[in-house]
Amino acid sequence: MSKPLILVVNDDGVTSQGIKALVEAVKDLGEVVVVAPDSPQSGMGHAISIGKPLRLTEVHLFEGIKAYKCSGTPVDCVKLAVDKVLHRKPDLCVSGINHGSNSSINIIYSGTMSAAMEASLEGTPSVGFSLCDYREEADFTASAYYAKLIAEQILKYGLPKHSLLNVNVPKLPQGKIKGMKIGRQALAKWEEEYIERIDPFGKPYYWLTGKFVNYDQGHDTDEFALANGYVSVVPVQHDLTAHHVIPFINENWNLKSTSGDDGIVPGVSKEEFNL
Amino acid sequence: MSKPLILVVNDDGVTSQGIKALVEAVKDLGEVVVVAPDSPQSGMGHAISIGKPLRLTEVHLFEGIKAYKCSGTPVDCVKLAVDKVLHRKPDLCVSGINHGSNSSINIIYSGTMSAAMEASLEGTPSVGFSLCDYREEADFTASAYYAKLIAEQILKYGLPKHSLLNVNVPKLPQGKIKGMKIGRQALAKWEEEYIERIDPFGKPYYWLTGKFVNYDQGHDTDEFALANGYVSVVPVQHDLTAHHVIPFINENWNLKSTSGDDGIVPGVSKEEFNL
Repeated sequence: MSKPLILVVNDDGVTSQGIKALVEAVKDLGEVVVVAPDSPQSGMGHAISIGKPLRLTEVHLFEGIKAYKCSGTPVDCVKLAVDKVLHRKPDLCVSGINHGSNSSINIIYSGTMSAAMEASLEGTPSVGFSLCDYREEADFTASAYYAKLIAEQILKYGLPKHSLLNVNVPKLPQGKIKGMKIGRQALAKWEEEYIERIDPFGKPYYWLTGKFVNYDQGHDTDEFALANGYVSVVPVQHDLTAHHVIPFINENWNLKSTSGDDGIVPGVSKEEFNL
Repeated sequence: MSKPLILVVNDDGVTSQGIKALVEAVKDLGEVVVVAPDSPQSGMGHAISIGKPLRLTEVHLFEGIKAYKCSGTPVDCVKLAVDKVLHRKPDLCVSGINHGSNSSINIIYSGTMSAAMEASLEGTPSVGFSLCDYREEADFTASAYYAKLIAEQILKYGLPKHSLLNVNVPKLPQGKIKGMKIGRQALAKWEEEYIERIDPFGKPYYWLTGKFVNYDQGHDTDEFALANGYVSVVPVQHDLTAHHVIPFINENWNLKSTSGDDGIVPGVSKEEFNL
């Protein structure tokens, strides 16, 4: 049996400590190929490069591992890797290890998780790993341990179609971590505050700062797991439909009655829904 | 009663035809303020500007309407608008009208929809509008008509918490549109093909091209609605948890048995879940 093909990507860039730790963690599980951004791409979400070409350059950063830096976003890295480097779908895509949490709503801004989601969209089982420690010199020992453990589980059991995993590791020594908790994305948000500065020419500019606020008291959330010393594992999907809102619209929007004799039928007819 | 405060944003940039049509469509429904990118930002997804300051400049592009251009992404525009321009949550955020479809999986790459999602995250009812016509000179008559109709419905009935709408309008004359269909995001994806070119210095670079493939035969999807002459309305949420995958992991990952006597407990204990 041939070794599984494992794509490693991230958003902090190909030279970050986190991707180095991840390569080390998974290198014995299969044939590992790295395609990662040539510069930090935190907060890039699911951005792709449209109307702007990409560069792809081989780098020699990881002993015995094929690796490339890409001028695009984390999602670009996955797309380009599959089409131009691997020439086939990898068996697993691991993204990270991110310097900083991607729990709860952070998933939506995260280049790390968007890269994993792109791989999942393309039919590859995938997982993003993040350590709740922003520092460059963060200790990735525990997160690398769990990354390997989880990668092994995915290679063994797969993941249901159209799903991926968001794994966050608390900033704790490995011996203090209580285990893993499988749960859901907490309901939380960032409260922004932009700091205004004045440039040397008298014009204002604005720096994004913010405070993370968790509104969710549930004990089944990623935030609860992390706050209580567990690695959080949240399965993620890419169908964003709010199915429960469909009946709300059907019941409230009585647009049928607004359609006139002008040939324009804005109406919503229940018979047409097939829901 | 004071007029509702309506924030208008987009991803094609403040000078696009689509945002002009949207401002015209909603300007009689409340006090309208525009904050939009100073350059095209298609495909920016939910990207935000981290570690890079933003510029915000008033522009006089829409008669009688306060408007600003912002150097950031569509999501930056929403955050900055709420904090530094409006100084309160708007009553409605409308995004678009996008030049090109944002149906099905396009939602995930779309700056237009990410801007609407950001407003929704901040507790503002919001909706993104897109016309299935990429051309600069596209005819926005029908999409503006539906944008107004839908904005009125949202102002009247609100939207359930933590939801927003993704509205796509087919490329048809207004009289040919059969009405609206409320449905779900189709299961579809892009199949990438990067075109390689060689620069004047002999080095390769890559252009993203792709083919949209709809795998979904459902009659309740946005793709079905659009293909059959309807405006598609899909309610969207920002909880990405794949709840159905939680039992899969619990059943398959028998990590309890791998925990040793080394003080490290990687185990997943069902008693701990509270699910």
